[in-house]
Amino acid sequence: MTHQTKGHSRQDTALIHGLSASEVQRLSETCIEAKGRAYCPYSHFRVGCSLLLTNGTVVQGANVENAAYPVATCAERVTVATAVVQGAKKGDIRAIAVATDISPPASPCGMCRQFLREFCELEMPVLMYDKDGKSTFMTLGQLLPMSFGPEKLLSTE
Amino acid sequence: MTHQTKGHSRQDTALIHGLSASEVQRLSETCIEAKGRAYCPYSHFRVGCSLLLTNGTVVQGANVENAAYPVATCAERVTVATAVVQGAKKGDIRAIAVATDISPPASPCGMCRQFLREFCELEMPVLMYDKDGKSTFMTLGQLLPMSFGPEKLLSTE
Amino acid sequence: MTHQTKGHSRQDTALIHGLSASEVQRLSETCIEAKGRAYCPYSHFRVGCSLLLTNGTVVQGANVENAAYPVATCAERVTVATAVVQGAKKGDIRAIAVATDISPPASPCGMCRQFLREFCELEMPVLMYDKDGKSTFMTLGQLLPMSFGPEKLLSTE
Amino acid sequence: MTHQTKGHSRQDTALIHGLSASEVQRLSETCIEAKGRAYCPYSHFRVGCSLLLTNGTVVQGANVENAAYPVATCAERVTVATAVVQGAKKGDIRAIAVATDISPPASPCGMCRQFLREFCELEMPVLMYDKDGKSTFMTLGQLLPMSFGPEKLLSTE
Ligand SMILES: [Zn+2]
Ligand SMILES: [Zn+2]
Ligand SMILES: [Zn+2]
Ligand SMILES: [Zn+2]
Repeated sequence: MTHQTKGHSRQDTALIHGLSASEVQRLSETCIEAKGRAYCPYSHFRVGCSLLLTNGTVVQGANVENAAYPVATCAERVTVATAVVQGAKKGDIRAIAVATDISPPASPCGMCRQFLREFCELEMPVLMYDKDGKSTFMTLGQLLPMSFGPEKLLSTE
Repeated sequence: MTHQTKGHSRQDTALIHGLSASEVQRLSETCIEAKGRAYCPYSHFRVGCSLLLTNGTVVQGANVENAAYPVATCAERVTVATAVVQGAKKGDIRAIAVATDISPPASPCGMCRQFLREFCELEMPVLMYDKDGKSTFMTLGQLLPMSFGPEKLLSTE
Repeated sequence: MTHQTKGHSRQDTALIHGLSASEVQRLSETCIEAKGRAYCPYSHFRVGCSLLLTNGTVVQGANVENAAYPVATCAERVTVATAVVQGAKKGDIRAIAVATDISPPASPCGMCRQFLREFCELEMPVLMYDKDGKSTFMTLGQLLPMSFGPEKLLSTE
Repeated sequence: MTHQTKGHSRQDTALIHGLSASEVQRLSETCIEAKGRAYCPYSHFRVGCSLLLTNGTVVQGANVENAAYPVATCAERVTVATAVVQGAKKGDIRAIAVATDISPPASPCGMCRQFLREFCELEMPVLMYDKDGKSTFMTLGQLLPMSFGPEKLLSTE
């Protein structure tokens, strides 16, 4: 089915409330394109990411590794941090998409889910694309249930 | 109800299959005790952690912060890494418990959920204790659904 | 002395070989401006960063914190990762500048020095600006002597 | 020369002021032994670490990796965090030793230098052992010049 090789099936799109088919298409194309920007000589595991802001802007990122493995950063964190530095506030991110070279699609690691938690609504959809552009999605709240967020710390100040 | 102030209610214990009441009690006491070992001059947010190995050993840890915030480590990661260095293998951790000074209980951050994912079964219970010793729990699989684990990378080698 | 309040003294500029006075000025202005983009509700410690590429482009970043402190990222890593994702290769970064609200100027943390190590020459100058725009600088090699770099791992592949 | 294959030469020992020959020997043996405890299925780069406390205790650690590379922890941070949780205070660590399987010896990554900075004196020696047990050493202050330490943040509270 041609729709699937373009990164989403018709029924997936229907489920991702709030995103139009063309917005999903834009996210799929930009996260897959971002895979080509990964610096991953150690894992050879490319990850591309893109997010859509409420103002219509798309921000892209990719994983950037380091000889000291823990010093590396994931695609999702590069992308969200770039958006924040450009002025995105809590709630400005409508959706985020991630693409890898495996199938089924890889999900964001726990560290990135936590990073997203700081800036995104729990209902925000996270789209995940496999090596062929086929996708699945979950909301952030589904990926990080009973999460530890800013209100735990900031309420005590 | 007195049982609750000791860190768990009777019905909670019944739900944590595989752990006896005395094992739950031991986990609650050791994670709460570990809170006192935290080094957290920046957040003033103490976290204690303990885990129970299949051989009956309990390992404890606490958060260790740093002037450069991202260089800090959480209680859960200190505890699990200590257990791994002492010889714990995948599947050897029967349960993990976390205690903080807030209520309702805080859950492990996403980064720690990911760290646990490497060594723990998805069915492993994560017990969370609040400031009064009242607890809740979830399995690791519930805390980190659709997780990114070792099989994603090691299968390609 | 007026030159110092603009971010560098005449003798400093002379020492930063390879950078013109206007390039130093551009770095100082952009890293100080970037401070205003920091998301740091936990530390209240703003850090702005900018770097200059061989093609003349300036990339900016700032620190982005998280309720789970270790999940945060520093200004320097956001900036360099953004540059890498935009296509910067090893050696393309001519200089990097960091600004904080303290005096004397703060230096990059060890984690960021390591992140820089992957992409920057050891002779690359790191400019550090204090709360008043006064600066000092060191090369990356001076900040991270006897460093652990890519050649340690990639030579064994 | 037989002394060198045991992890230090006579002249090295003389240079490490404050440590006796038997203390250096103990550090070399324990950090090399700790290499065998590493969990490193991704990098296959084993790192062992040990440190000597003022009370004579030796604490050991090793690197613990993760499928999500940035979630991993290095041997040095596991070791120091374990010591801190066991009660070590700032200044209690007399020396730290690191062993890898390469030559010349690998140094701690920048992130670990920063972690050490929180708890160790700048004069503290860091001993580094290569694959054959030959060593070199530098002080923490030499490894992390012009460092960002606790006094930068805590003084403002
Ligand atoms: Zn991640
Ligand atoms: Zn954590
Ligand atoms: Zn940093
Ligand atoms: Zn390290």
